[in-house]
Amino acid sequence: MLGLINNQKKKYFPVLQGRAHSSSFAHRSELRQAKRIVVKLGSAVVTRGDECGLALGRLASIVEQVAMLQNQGREMMIVTSGAVAFGKQRLRHEILLSQSVRQALHSGHNQLKDMSLPVLEARACAAAGQSGLMALYEAMFTQYSTCTAQVLVTNLDFHDDQKRQNLNSTLQELLRMNIVPIINTNDAVVPPPEPNSDLQGVNVISIKDNDSLAARLAVEMKADLLVALSDVEGLYNSPPGTDDAKLIDIFYPGDQQSITYGTKSRVGIGGMEAKVKAALWALQGGTSVVIANGTNPKVTGHVITDIVEGKKVGTFFSEIKPAGPSVEEQTEMARSFGRTLASLHPVQRSEIICHLADLLTERKEDILAANKMDMDLAVRHLPPAMLKRLSLSPAKLNSLAVGLRQIAVAAQDSVGRVVRRTRVAHDLELEQITVPIGVLLVIFEARPDCLPQVSALAIASGNALLLKGGKEAANTNRVLHQLTQEALSMHGIREAVQMVSTREEVEDLCRLDKMIDLIIPRGSSQLVRAIQQAAKGIPVLGHSEGICHVYVDADASVDKVIKIVRDSKCGYPAACNAMETLLIHRDILRTPMFDQIIDMLRNEQVKIHAGPRFASYLTFSPSEVTSMRTEYGDLECCMEVVDSMEEAVEHMHKYGSSHTDVIITENEDTAEKFLQQLDSACVFWNASSRFADGYRFGLGAEVGISTARIHARGPVGLEGLLTTKWVLRGDGHTVADFSEHGTMKYLHENLPVGQPLAGQRDSN
Amino acid sequence: MLGLINNQKKKYFPVLQGRAHSSSFAHRSELRQAKRIVVKLGSAVVTRGDECGLALGRLASIVEQVAMLQNQGREMMIVTSGAVAFGKQRLRHEILLSQSVRQALHSGHNQLKDMSLPVLEARACAAAGQSGLMALYEAMFTQYSTCTAQVLVTNLDFHDDQKRQNLNSTLQELLRMNIVPIINTNDAVVPPPEPNSDLQGVNVISIKDNDSLAARLAVEMKADLLVALSDVEGLYNSPPGTDDAKLIDIFYPGDQQSITYGTKSRVGIGGMEAKVKAALWALQGGTSVVIANGTNPKVTGHVITDIVEGKKVGTFFSEIKPAGPSVEEQTEMARSFGRTLASLHPVQRSEIICHLADLLTERKEDILAANKMDMDLAVRHLPPAMLKRLSLSPAKLNSLAVGLRQIAVAAQDSVGRVVRRTRVAHDLELEQITVPIGVLLVIFEARPDCLPQVSALAIASGNALLLKGGKEAANTNRVLHQLTQEALSMHGIREAVQMVSTREEVEDLCRLDKMIDLIIPRGSSQLVRAIQQAAKGIPVLGHSEGICHVYVDADASVDKVIKIVRDSKCGYPAACNAMETLLIHRDILRTPMFDQIIDMLRNEQVKIHAGPRFASYLTFSPSEVTSMRTEYGDLECCMEVVDSMEEAVEHMHKYGSSHTDVIITENEDTAEKFLQQLDSACVFWNASSRFADGYRFGLGAEVGISTARIHARGPVGLEGLLTTKWVLRGDGHTVADFSEHGTMKYLHENLPVGQPLAGQRDSN
Repeated sequence: MLGLINNQKKKYFPVLQGRAHSSSFAHRSELRQAKRIVVKLGSAVVTRGDECGLALGRLASIVEQVAMLQNQGREMMIVTSGAVAFGKQRLRHEILLSQSVRQALHSGHNQLKDMSLPVLEARACAAAGQSGLMALYEAMFTQYSTCTAQVLVTNLDFHDDQKRQNLNSTLQELLRMNIVPIINTNDAVVPPPEPNSDLQGVNVISIKDNDSLAARLAVEMKADLLVALSDVEGLYNSPPGTDDAKLIDIFYPGDQQSITYGTKSRVGIGGMEAKVKAALWALQGGTSVVIANGTNPKVTGHVITDIVEGKKVGTFFSEIKPAGPSVEEQTEMARSFGRTLASLHPVQRSEIICHLADLLTERKEDILAANKMDMDLAVRHLPPAMLKRLSLSPAKLNSLAVGLRQIAVAAQDSVGRVVRRTRVAHDLELEQITVPIGVLLVIFEARPDCLPQVSALAIASGNALLLKGGKEAANTNRVLHQLTQEALSMHGIREAVQMVSTREEVEDLCRLDKMIDLIIPRGSSQLVRAIQQAAKGIPVLGHSEGICHVYVDADASVDKVIKIVRDSKCGYPAACNAMETLLIHRDILRTPMFDQIIDMLRNEQVKIHAGPRFASYLTFSPSEVTSMRTEYGDLECCMEVVDSMEEAVEHMHKYGSSHTDVIITENEDTAEKFLQQLDSACVFWNASSRFADGYRFGLGAEVGISTARIHARGPVGLEGLLTTKWVLRGDGHTVADFSEHGTMKYLHENLPVGQPLAGQRDSN
Repeated sequence: MLGLINNQKKKYFPVLQGRAHSSSFAHRSELRQAKRIVVKLGSAVVTRGDECGLALGRLASIVEQVAMLQNQGREMMIVTSGAVAFGKQRLRHEILLSQSVRQALHSGHNQLKDMSLPVLEARACAAAGQSGLMALYEAMFTQYSTCTAQVLVTNLDFHDDQKRQNLNSTLQELLRMNIVPIINTNDAVVPPPEPNSDLQGVNVISIKDNDSLAARLAVEMKADLLVALSDVEGLYNSPPGTDDAKLIDIFYPGDQQSITYGTKSRVGIGGMEAKVKAALWALQGGTSVVIANGTNPKVTGHVITDIVEGKKVGTFFSEIKPAGPSVEEQTEMARSFGRTLASLHPVQRSEIICHLADLLTERKEDILAANKMDMDLAVRHLPPAMLKRLSLSPAKLNSLAVGLRQIAVAAQDSVGRVVRRTRVAHDLELEQITVPIGVLLVIFEARPDCLPQVSALAIASGNALLLKGGKEAANTNRVLHQLTQEALSMHGIREAVQMVSTREEVEDLCRLDKMIDLIIPRGSSQLVRAIQQAAKGIPVLGHSEGICHVYVDADASVDKVIKIVRDSKCGYPAACNAMETLLIHRDILRTPMFDQIIDMLRNEQVKIHAGPRFASYLTFSPSEVTSMRTEYGDLECCMEVVDSMEEAVEHMHKYGSSHTDVIITENEDTAEKFLQQLDSACVFWNASSRFADGYRFGLGAEVGISTARIHARGPVGLEGLLTTKWVLRGDGHTVADFSEHGTMKYLHENLPVGQPLAGQRDSN
C-alpha cells in the first residue's frame, strides 16, 4: 500500500530514464543522469566531533537532500554509520543512571562527584544504538513523505551467492516501491574490525568498514553513482597541509602512483588509501564515485545535490581521461607564459597586437563562416537584440582591427613605465614602475567581438588571460582564439591566452582564488552580480547597476535638454549608461520646456513613473514609482522634482549607483559645482550619459565600466589592467645605517620620471 | 534521578551567577550574562517553506545551540510552533492511505491520478502532531544528554492566578532539575486564532500566538532574555524592500512612532507589529528581547549563540538609549562631513593637518598624561614589545609632527589633480581627476601614533575616516582624536573623522558594506586575515603574510651580504618586511663567505631551518623545514640552495608572498634581470628588505603595505587613498551625433594635464 502511495508521487516529478549499466560516467556533468545513487555516510559525518551522539543538523540536511533526489525519481540508498555513537550515548546514560541509583541507595548522593564513566564496547553500543538510529532516520524521512527500510548486512551475505542474491532482490523490491533502504553492518555479530586488513585486493573485497561495504553494494546493485562522505575534502596529491598538497578534482585509475597517502583520518577506521581502493573497485564495477566532505558547515546543506548537479565538489573518479588540460593546468600555463609576455619589449607586444589585427581581416572568411554556424544555431532561440550582438560582419571586423591598432600604439608605453622616482639616499634609488596585474579571467556572453578586444588589452598590458565565452558563440570564439594564439606564437607565447571550455562552471572558475588575480565579467548586471557573489577572494572589476540621472537645471537650454534626454534614454535603453531617472528643477514645471520634454518622451514611447514629489504636483500623475533605485533598462524612466542643484546631487547620492550622472545648464558656476560635488564615476555637463564608454572616452577599447571605488573607476582600458611594483637599487644599504647612531640620512628627492623604461635598459 | 544526573553535569561547566531580575540589559554585550533564556520558535522557523512538515535541519541546529547554552549552566526554555505542521504531514499521510485503500478496493489503482488532497483543519492537525513533535524534540535533545519536558498552556492558565502559580512552580522545578521545558499552546482546546486581536494592550496580554505567549512566559518566569526567531531579519524602520528600509539594530520604546509596519509576514499569524508589542511588553517586564531571523541558512547554525554572545544579530530591544550616536549614525556623519572635506581647497586641507601637527606639540602634556594612564593599566598584562609601541614620548610626538607637516605639503597636490585630459570632439572635453575614495575604516591595535598619521593621510586625501583603536590605548586615542577634531573644526568639519567605541565588534563594522568603501587594518597578520574574512563586500587593503627572501648571488660582495642579511633578519624580526628565507647560490656553499654568513647568524642567535636541497648538501644539517612558506616573525629563518638567479626567482614565485624580495650581487646584468622578472610588490638590489616602508620610501607616512595586486601595492601613502572620476564638459553633445549619419567625429586628442586643479577654478 505504501508502495502505491509513493509510486503515485512519481507523477509529479520527472522520472529519469534508466540507463544500461555498462560503464561509469566520464564527466561530472553526466552525473545529472545518475538514476540509482548510493550515499555513504562515514562515522565522522554522522557523529559530533566528540564522537558521542549524532550530528543531528548534518544528518537532517543529508536526509533532506536524499529525499529531494528520491522525489526527483532517483533511487536512493544510504549506507550509514552511527549506530555505535547513538548506542554510546544511550548506554552511557543507562550506566550513569544505574550507577547513580546504586550510589544514592548506598552512600548518599554527595559521592556522585567521583563517579567515572565506564569504557564502552563498540559492538554492544552498536546493538543498543541500531534501533534508535533507525527510528531517527524514519522520523526524519517521514517529514519528506519518504519511507525507509532497515537492512543489516554481514561479510557472509556477500560471500554466499544465495544470500547475495537474496539481498539483491530484497533491495530491488524496496527500490521498486520507492523506499529508501538504509544499510549498515550488523556490527553486533561481527568480530571487531582490524584496521588496514579491510581490503585484500581489488577483486576480493571484504566488508569491515563502510567504504568497502558501500562500494560492494553499489556494484552489486548496479548503482550509477556512489557518493562517499567523510571529513576530508577529497583526495589530495600529497598529504593535506604540505607545501604542494592540491585537491584532486578528477582522479583517473592510472594516476594512482602519483599520490602520496598521509596518516589515517582521525575518525572511523577507513583511511584515505582504503577509500581510494574502494572507490577504484566500484569504478571498475561500473559505478561512478565522488569522495567529498560531509562535515564542512558551508556546504553540508547541499553537498549531495551539488555533486549530482555536476559541480566541482570533492574528488570525482573517472576511467576516461579528457583530452585537453584541466582548467588549473590552463591557468598555470597562462601564468607562466604570461610572465614571458610581461618581459617582452613593449614593441614586441605591440607587434603581436598588430599581427592579430591583420589576421582579423586576412582570415575574415574563416571567422565569418564560423560565425554563420553560430548564427544558424542561435536564430531559433535567441532574441533579436542578442542575435545582433552575436553576428559579425566584414565592417565589424574592420573596425575591430582599427581599434586593435590603437591599442597596439598604446601598448608601447604601458608596462615598465616609471611613475615615480625618488633618490632615497646617496646611491639608493627607488622607482615605482607599472607592471601587469597577473592572470585575468574575462567572462563574456554571446558577443564574440569581445574576444580580440580583451585579448589585445591583456597583451598590451602584459597580462595572462583566461577567456570564458558564451556557448552561443562557441564556433566564432574558437576561430578568434586560434588567431590570437597564432599572433602570440610570433614571440613563442601562444599559451598566454587560454580559452576555457564552455563546460566549465563559472562558479568553479571563481574558486581558483590563488591562481587568478582579477575577474572581469562583461555582460548583463545579473552576470556581474552572480560573479561578485561567487568570487570569494578574487577582486571583480565591473558594475552591478547603472542607475544614471540627468538633472535639468533651471538655467537649461531647451534644445540641449531635448537632445540630451532623448539620447540618454532612448539611444540604447538596455545599456548601463542609459538614463533611468530624470530630475527637473521645480521652476521648470508647467513651463513650455516641461511640456516639450514630456511630448518628446511620449513620442519616443517612454513610460514615465512619477517620483513622490513629482506626483504630488500633478493632478493626473503617472503611476508612482515603488523605488527610485530602479534600473529599468527599457523605455521607462522615473521623473522627480528637485528644488536646486544641491538637492539633485543629494538625490543622486541617495538613490544612484555612482555610475554616470549629467547636469544640463547654461550656468557655468552651477555646472562646475555639480561636477565638483557629485561623487560619481562619470560626471557630465551638457552631454549625454551615453558617452560613458571606453571607446568614446578615447581609451581604444574597454574591458568594462567599474563602479567600484578601488583600483579602476568608470570605463576601464589599458591603464586599469596595470598595477605597479617598487624597485630599489642600493649599494649594501641597511635600515640600521639610518638609525639615530647611523651614518646615513634620508634625502627623499623626487627625480624626473622621463627615463627609458625600466628593465629594458640592459636587456636590449 | 534524572535531575541528579543532569545537575552533576554542571560541575563541568561554569555556573552563571543569578542576577537580581530588576531590569533588562542596556547593551548587547551584557547579554552574555543572561542566565534564564526563553527561545521562541515561530512557525516559519520550524516548518519548511511549503508549510508541510518540519524544517528538520534548522530545528536540529537550534536544539544543538539550546543544549550548548544549557550546558554552559544557563536555564533554557523553548516556546515552539510546529505541532500543526507535524500533524498536517501525518494526517495527510493517513488520509491518503485510507483513500488509496478505498480506491484500490473499489476501482483499481489507475483512478488514483485524480485523487486530491483534503483541506486539513489546523486544530486537528495540532492534536495529531503534538506527540510527534515532542518525541522529535526529545530524541534530538537526548543526543546532547539534555532532558526535556512538555508543557501545554492555554489562555486560562495565565488569567487564573492559581493556575499561573501552578505553571510557574512546575517550570521552576523543571529548571531546577536542569530540564528544558518545551512550551506550546494547547491548540486542540482553543478557538481558532483571530489575527490582529491578539494583543489588546500592553498590560492585558492574551495568548493567541507564540509571540505573546513567549513574552508572557518570559516575564512570568523572570527570564533575562527572550530570543524570538521568525523569518524576518528583525525590525525595519520601513517595510523591508522600500527605498529607505533599514534594519534597526537597537530599538528603544520611545522610538515606536518612527517606524512604519508593512504587511504581515507570510507564515504564522504574528505580524511584525504584534511581535514588537509583545517584545515591548516583555521589556517592560524586565526581560531583554532580540527579534531575529531563524531561517537564514547562513546563520541558522549559530543565531542563538551569536545573540547571547552580544553580536549584532536582528533587533535588540533596550530601555536605555546610549548617550552617543550609533556606529551607523557615525558613519553617515563621517560621509556627509567627508564630502565637505573633499570639496575644500587643497590649501585648507593642508591647514588642518598643520594645525593638528601644532596641537601635537602644544598639547603634549595632555597626550602624555593620557598615555601614562594607558601605560599604567597595560604594564601588568602587555608584553614589553607591545608596551614599547603603546608608549609615547615628547620625541615621538615631535617626529610625528614632522611627518604630518610632510603630509600637509603633499596634500596641496592630491585631490582634484588632473591625471588625463582628452579633447573627445569639438567643444567636448574629458578630464580624469583624482578624488577621495569615500569613507575609510582604519582598525589599529595598541599603537596610538597611528591615529594622527592615519587621520592626516585621510584629511590630505579628502576621505572621511572611522577609527577603531585598541582598548589598551583608549585614553591616548581619545585625546588624540579630540585634537584631530579640534583641527578639523577650523573649517567646520569636526565630524569627518569619527572614533568608534571600543565596544563595537570589528565583525559588526565589517558588515556596514554599503557605507564603508575601504577597510585598512593596521596590525598583526592575524588581525588582517580576520578582517579579510569578515569583510564581505568591502575591499580590505593590507598584507596577510610577509614571506620575504634574500638571494645571495654567486657574484655577491661578502661585506654587503653580511650587512644586508643581518639587517633584513635581525633588525626587527617581527616586522612583515623581515627576511624569512635566505637563498644562496650553490657556488657559495663551502666558501669562506658561506662560513661568514653562518657565523653571523649564529652570533645573532638566529635559528636556521634547512630547505630540502640545502639539507642534502650537508653532513650535519639543521632541522629540515616542514614548509618553505613559513613566516617565522622571530630570530629564525629557512636557508635553501639554488643553482641560479632564475631558480631563485622561481622559488620566490612558488613559496613567497610577493611582498619584498632582495638580490645581493655585483653583476648589474643579473640584478636588472632579477628586478625585471620577479613579480613582487617590492624588488630590491643590494639593499635590506627592511626598506619596504612608507616613511623610508619617502611617502611621508603609510597606511599599510599592500600585497594585493589591485589598486595599491607595496607601501601605501596618500596616493593609495585616492581614486579618480571622469569629468566631461560638452555643449549638448549626444552619442547619436557621432553615429554613421551624425555630424561629428571623435578627435581623441591628448591634452596637457598641467592645468589648475579641477573644480577649484570657479570656486575661488
